[in-house]
Amino acid sequence: MAKPRVAVDAMGGDHAPQSIVEGSILAAETFGSELQVVLIGDEPAIRRHLSLADQTRLGIEVVHSSETIGMAEAAATAYRKKPDASIVVATRMLKARQVHALVSAGNTGAVVTSSLLGLGRLAGVQRPAIATIVPTPTGHCLLLDVGANSDSKPMHLFQFAVMGKVYAQQVYGVENPKVGLLNIGEESCKGSDLTQQAHKLLEEGRGQMNFIGNVEGKDILTGHADVVVCDGFTGNVILKFAESVVNMAVQTVRREIESHIKYKIGAGLLRPVFSGLKNKLNYEEYGGAPLLGVDGVVVISHGRSTAKAIMNAIRVGGTAARQGVAEKIGEELARELQRQEATG
Amino acid sequence: MAKPRVAVDAMGGDHAPQSIVEGSILAAETFGSELQVVLIGDEPAIRRHLSLADQTRLGIEVVHSSETIGMAEAAATAYRKKPDASIVVATRMLKARQVHALVSAGNTGAVVTSSLLGLGRLAGVQRPAIATIVPTPTGHCLLLDVGANSDSKPMHLFQFAVMGKVYAQQVYGVENPKVGLLNIGEESCKGSDLTQQAHKLLEEGRGQMNFIGNVEGKDILTGHADVVVCDGFTGNVILKFAESVVNMAVQTVRREIESHIKYKIGAGLLRPVFSGLKNKLNYEEYGGAPLLGVDGVVVISHGRSTAKAIMNAIRVGGTAARQGVAEKIGEELARELQRQEATG
Repeated sequence: MAKPRVAVDAMGGDHAPQSIVEGSILAAETFGSELQVVLIGDEPAIRRHLSLADQTRLGIEVVHSSETIGMAEAAATAYRKKPDASIVVATRMLKARQVHALVSAGNTGAVVTSSLLGLGRLAGVQRPAIATIVPTPTGHCLLLDVGANSDSKPMHLFQFAVMGKVYAQQVYGVENPKVGLLNIGEESCKGSDLTQQAHKLLEEGRGQMNFIGNVEGKDILTGHADVVVCDGFTGNVILKFAESVVNMAVQTVRREIESHIKYKIGAGLLRPVFSGLKNKLNYEEYGGAPLLGVDGVVVISHGRSTAKAIMNAIRVGGTAARQGVAEKIGEELARELQRQEATG
Repeated sequence: MAKPRVAVDAMGGDHAPQSIVEGSILAAETFGSELQVVLIGDEPAIRRHLSLADQTRLGIEVVHSSETIGMAEAAATAYRKKPDASIVVATRMLKARQVHALVSAGNTGAVVTSSLLGLGRLAGVQRPAIATIVPTPTGHCLLLDVGANSDSKPMHLFQFAVMGKVYAQQVYGVENPKVGLLNIGEESCKGSDLTQQAHKLLEEGRGQMNFIGNVEGKDILTGHADVVVCDGFTGNVILKFAESVVNMAVQTVRREIESHIKYKIGAGLLRPVFSGLKNKLNYEEYGGAPLLGVDGVVVISHGRSTAKAIMNAIRVGGTAARQGVAEKIGEELARELQRQEATG
């Protein structure tokens, strides 16, 4: 592939289109030699944030679409009623391979619905999954599913493992990713009916995958595993809980610091340490969560995405497209299906 | 009830019997006018940590038991094979009402098994639940189940709500506890099959309970709800994840602080702020997790419990016994069963 073209949903997100356009400018400035940014949305609104100088210098393309799906709209209805919504147009262009990746900070339900209906699932994929990156002392861990599904079956969890493995290899360059199954207790006999059955499937597929067995809630952040697989309910609860833990700790410390001049001085001295921690825990650095299992590269960014978060999401989208993540997930799952049929 | 007698499993926990005995001494010193401590375990080992002065002055009783269930032993087998294990003896004494509460930092599986088989469930209770206390800006939130069960049904979640409500009222003095259902998404139509059905049951029982609807992972720590109900798999994953978030943040900050003299000075100035945050997040302050739904007051402490954590667990056990928590849960569930039969 020459330079991958990354479609950016200019109308999705709490700060759209401003922070989306700003993030696109940052991405074009920083990664312009590696990818081409294509902004999709209300053209006059986009142009207001995109100076003529930017357009000429950075070569950002703009594709007009006349409709927008709001953050709180019911996804399926909105998809049906708004064929010219920015996310729907972006998905159509991805399907037609006019672009090679898609980034949206919009309504997550609408992105998932639009991807499922507009792109379809890869052959053999039973359920798509949203994967998120969590920081570990030595790097990252990919946690999936974090909310594409509310109920999962053992085979879904097995496929999440395969998809996560391919993504960690292709986008994060982890050669032989360690894959763990999120469970309560480490022994293989432990867990819910779902995790016990998924454990069995993953054991059987161990030849194709570096399955390290069960991991617990406390292991997600330690780096024990490169990929941690769970059902979308559990994953979504953890993701949202994690965000709130960080917020609560920051608020508590900040309130205390304000209460005494001595603390203010101490906090001043420690500012770089706090920023370092904040960066480590900051979703902005990780560039959004890929939707895996659909026929194309789709990156979902946080609704509150800043320009920096959008820039990183565009970078991730470009990398995933260049590495052919979707195709490789399809190939790997096809091999798995053959193996399962052969063994039985 | 006169002074409740609280049985303490002297042999359970990573630092047993030393920290258990020390915690019992602290409890007797601090709450001796409100409760009576009864240490159960290997008498010579207990006496080594309990000076004669302590015994006379504090009136701590010691009941000898000859066996111990290890932290990693399979619970059901251990229960059957070791009738004189400290936790089994303690449960038997609770059943016979020779003591009124039981505290153990031992093997959680063994405590649950011993309670289920030795005490039995309260009439009408389908499944017991372990409840844990999490800190919120304005107080606490009770989260249950955090691991007594690995698979749950809608009616189990409903009963957890009733049990959590009674506990919050009786032990934390919350008059009309706000009860939330942990879910992905706030709308009542959202969630897994399990949570959708549980939502319906909780809606129907709203007259008996201040059910505030779905809460998300991010709401657990905010204090939106006084009681948050979830299945034991999700709850256990969150609990273990939460512990690791705090540890990771502390380690990261500590490593950074060591790297520069300026940071060390800043950290020195901020020491009271850090201790405050640590205390807020510290399980030691909250005194262990009650096992609700069994016929007696059982408090499970963290395996790593310090003396202070044991002291607080003993206090909680005493309060729960004095307030008749188990009996009140039984009465409330009986009323609920009548209502459900009447409405049909």
